[in-house]
Amino acid sequence: MAILNRADSARLFMGAGGPSGSAAPDRSVVEPGGPATEAPAEMTLRQAYDKLVAVSMDATKLGSALGLVAWDESTLMPPHGADYHAKVQAYLADQANQLLTSPEFGQWLSAAEKGQDWSQVEAINLRLWRHDYDKRTKLPPGFVAREAEMASQSQTAWTKARAENNFAIFRPYLEAMVDLARQKARYYGYEVHPLDALMDDLMPGMTVAQCDRLLGAVTPAIVELVRKIKDSKTVIPDNLFGQAVFPKEKQEALAREMTAAIGLDYQGALYMETPRHPMTTTINPGDVRITTRYKENNPLEPALLAALHEAGHAIYSQGIPAEYYGLPVEQDAGMDIQEASSRYFENYIGRSKPFWQYWFPRFQEVFGPTAATISLDDLYRFMNRFNLSVIRLEADEVSYVLHIIIRYEIERDLFGDKIKTEDLPAVWNQKYKDYLGLDVPDDRSGILQDIHWAGGAFGYFPSYAFGSMNAAQLDAALHRDHPDLDQRLASGDFAVPIAWMREHIYKYGRLYPVTELIKLATGEEQDPSYFIRYLTAKYGEIYQL
Amino acid sequence: MAILNRADSARLFMGAGGPSGSAAPDRSVVEPGGPATEAPAEMTLRQAYDKLVAVSMDATKLGSALGLVAWDESTLMPPHGADYHAKVQAYLADQANQLLTSPEFGQWLSAAEKGQDWSQVEAINLRLWRHDYDKRTKLPPGFVAREAEMASQSQTAWTKARAENNFAIFRPYLEAMVDLARQKARYYGYEVHPLDALMDDLMPGMTVAQCDRLLGAVTPAIVELVRKIKDSKTVIPDNLFGQAVFPKEKQEALAREMTAAIGLDYQGALYMETPRHPMTTTINPGDVRITTRYKENNPLEPALLAALHEAGHAIYSQGIPAEYYGLPVEQDAGMDIQEASSRYFENYIGRSKPFWQYWFPRFQEVFGPTAATISLDDLYRFMNRFNLSVIRLEADEVSYVLHIIIRYEIERDLFGDKIKTEDLPAVWNQKYKDYLGLDVPDDRSGILQDIHWAGGAFGYFPSYAFGSMNAAQLDAALHRDHPDLDQRLASGDFAVPIAWMREHIYKYGRLYPVTELIKLATGEEQDPSYFIRYLTAKYGEIYQL
Repeated sequence: MAILNRADSARLFMGAGGPSGSAAPDRSVVEPGGPATEAPAEMTLRQAYDKLVAVSMDATKLGSALGLVAWDESTLMPPHGADYHAKVQAYLADQANQLLTSPEFGQWLSAAEKGQDWSQVEAINLRLWRHDYDKRTKLPPGFVAREAEMASQSQTAWTKARAENNFAIFRPYLEAMVDLARQKARYYGYEVHPLDALMDDLMPGMTVAQCDRLLGAVTPAIVELVRKIKDSKTVIPDNLFGQAVFPKEKQEALAREMTAAIGLDYQGALYMETPRHPMTTTINPGDVRITTRYKENNPLEPALLAALHEAGHAIYSQGIPAEYYGLPVEQDAGMDIQEASSRYFENYIGRSKPFWQYWFPRFQEVFGPTAATISLDDLYRFMNRFNLSVIRLEADEVSYVLHIIIRYEIERDLFGDKIKTEDLPAVWNQKYKDYLGLDVPDDRSGILQDIHWAGGAFGYFPSYAFGSMNAAQLDAALHRDHPDLDQRLASGDFAVPIAWMREHIYKYGRLYPVTELIKLATGEEQDPSYFIRYLTAKYGEIYQL
Repeated sequence: MAILNRADSARLFMGAGGPSGSAAPDRSVVEPGGPATEAPAEMTLRQAYDKLVAVSMDATKLGSALGLVAWDESTLMPPHGADYHAKVQAYLADQANQLLTSPEFGQWLSAAEKGQDWSQVEAINLRLWRHDYDKRTKLPPGFVAREAEMASQSQTAWTKARAENNFAIFRPYLEAMVDLARQKARYYGYEVHPLDALMDDLMPGMTVAQCDRLLGAVTPAIVELVRKIKDSKTVIPDNLFGQAVFPKEKQEALAREMTAAIGLDYQGALYMETPRHPMTTTINPGDVRITTRYKENNPLEPALLAALHEAGHAIYSQGIPAEYYGLPVEQDAGMDIQEASSRYFENYIGRSKPFWQYWFPRFQEVFGPTAATISLDDLYRFMNRFNLSVIRLEADEVSYVLHIIIRYEIERDLFGDKIKTEDLPAVWNQKYKDYLGLDVPDDRSGILQDIHWAGGAFGYFPSYAFGSMNAAQLDAALHRDHPDLDQRLASGDFAVPIAWMREHIYKYGRLYPVTELIKLATGEEQDPSYFIRYLTAKYGEIYQL
């Protein structure tokens, strides 16, 4: 019986990597005291590029370890491990940051940028390294640590404020987070709106102008659709399953079957239960992890549909060429397309009639008598029922987008100096009235419902809406390229969607911006009308509008 | 539904630690080009010591991440993740090694060593830093990587040789590993025997002379005891449970109960199933992990007894003061005492009659009708049955030590130039005949049965034997200090052993060498006769000798 304790692993592993794995800048090729933007004359372009690759690979190894520690924290870590886990994460993040912001890195980058004959991938790597390096080095020393510290305090205040249903407790911390985010935007630089600089981290190239254009184009139609569904005579009850119990093990078995069927390769994936929100974590190209939760009175939500959503993320990750790993081009193109993949597999596949035409008999078989009295049509309508709520996470596909638009407009106006933090509860509640016709009963169910802003994630919400929109456009193109897609799905042939996504989206990694990627994949500019057409057709049929 | 993929975690976490966590040597206090053994005049002793602490803490953060990646690899990692996991481990190990072997570290150490007024703990930290630094820096650049590379090839060759039952395939690789180990011993330096230098990594201070003295003292008595048991008329069948099936979930539930009862704190521990060997991994002071395996036809082995063994390791880890964490004194004192703790809780508690007097009713309750026909006495005798086998891992407590002695003698004579690798199968088989009276049928069940040497772990086996011996001496002292111990255990009061171990062993971390620790705990020198007395009494009763 072996033991691998820390002492032991230190004894066995210390130094096992050997100097070949070293990330230390090779000082012999750096002129001491030389100007920071010049590389030594004797270094060739290729040598400079190779240095960038080596450092990038090392930072990625730190990122991989960091990803595993973070994943472990949200799944398995015993409670007393938390403090030290956090320190390890901070240390690994800082080490990676140091590698990617060192003066040597800047020198190699400047040297390599003088080259003309790079391949397409190399040229894009250089451009992305430059983009990321400039952003990272624009923040003054200590800024990120100060932001992390304040975010931690702010999240604690948010938790307390929410428990006590009292926005006043949270307001000064939110104010501080907004101030820090404004400072960050100024360091990064922006042309029109501070949020432009902040959104670039998650959705490269996205701007407030673009958000206004795309979200503005769908808002009236969705408000109108919500009104129509509310007025419809069709009512789908909240509970399809009565008092039935769907054992966790059976939910898990079916979720594994379904996610494998749509193309998740379990030789390179891990499926786990989590007590927290479902999540996808990519540890390395051969190790992507999805988590989901179970409610024993509802096998669809969160279990199966969350698993399909996360599988949509994981499949994206598995579709990026492994040889890109560790390089800038390896990342996905942005949250707005990453989230399109997850929403495509959750909503356009997982909530579709053809998908369930195939899976319904299996569903009945797995759950036995419990599922015997449910019809396919009931199940389909139930999982697509309209659910008007003041709580975002309870919303259906249609009204969900309005929850996002409300948050986006508030962020935009807060950073555009049109509203102040003290006005937030009133502004929030008014928008819920205007867009959804709902009265928000208290701050807990209103302005305090999401943790995003408490953690400094401003400009994050829109990526959810763009995920839905982009998914609709991809789905339309997929159906255009494969007119028999629905028949295939209904017969249990799920090979087309993942093959199409790989060929048109995943394989490009971060080679192209999202707008370009959509154009390459669909032959058209980003067009939000596909989303409206999808919602109108689907909900028109379900609610007989 | 949140996503944390690598790209995303990089975006969110990069730089989150801030510069305070930096491990980069502070170049401003190091004289460039100055002599490597002198620290700058302006640095105080305290500043130098604090630098050592900071670097030590950072290396420990890397070690914590490394421990988690290694643990994950042996439990959850999907198959395709393996290659990159290995790269991450090598990188983290190399980074930690770089921190602990830098010239700056040596300078701070030399500077701090000039101080006179260190506390006991500080003085011991300095001594251990020196010991470890000297060992680490004695190996030339590239040596560790070359050794790791050869170990990997050698283990592959061992796997093939074992599958084909052909020692000749493995021999040249074993030869190469022995050569590397000899080189390492020369780099480390030794006075008498090369194995002295190699054993010091696992059992600080242990020597061949000491091994010969201690193992030599027990060998004749154990050979004699084995002979007597073989000749005894008492026979305990190999299978107590017939065709009964003990469901995994119930085995797990009981193993958790028992390990919690003996004192494992699950707020800071994680219990998991593993397909591999049971193992303990300490991630940090609040997170120690044990794994065990199950066979559904035998709930005792491996499940319950392996869990108690691993809990014995984990309890040691939990008993080391958390404020030592990251410092040299935090480690256990050596594998020979670490293994004493695990063997104490497995054998002296877990295979004892009083322990099972308490647990037997619960055992019957958990397994219901399956366990109804088994008596307490049968169970006790079954778990302590003599099992003479050519396979070490199948051996009982008595003959196990002879398996170890055989391996130790071969290592000793191999490194002492008394035997050659080509003689190993014959030497092995002859020793099995001499000590255990057994004919080894083939190399697969003989010289090829353990992976240790293939991986370069020479001088490792004796720690198992010393674990057993030290446990016997501690058990005797524990009974001397607490004459009512057996009655307490039989009544379900398990508080004494862990309290005693904490007070006499765990709390000292690596403050004292094992020999000193044994003296402090028991008031006597290390004395192998306790082990013989324990075996003679226990097996004398069971086998009516």
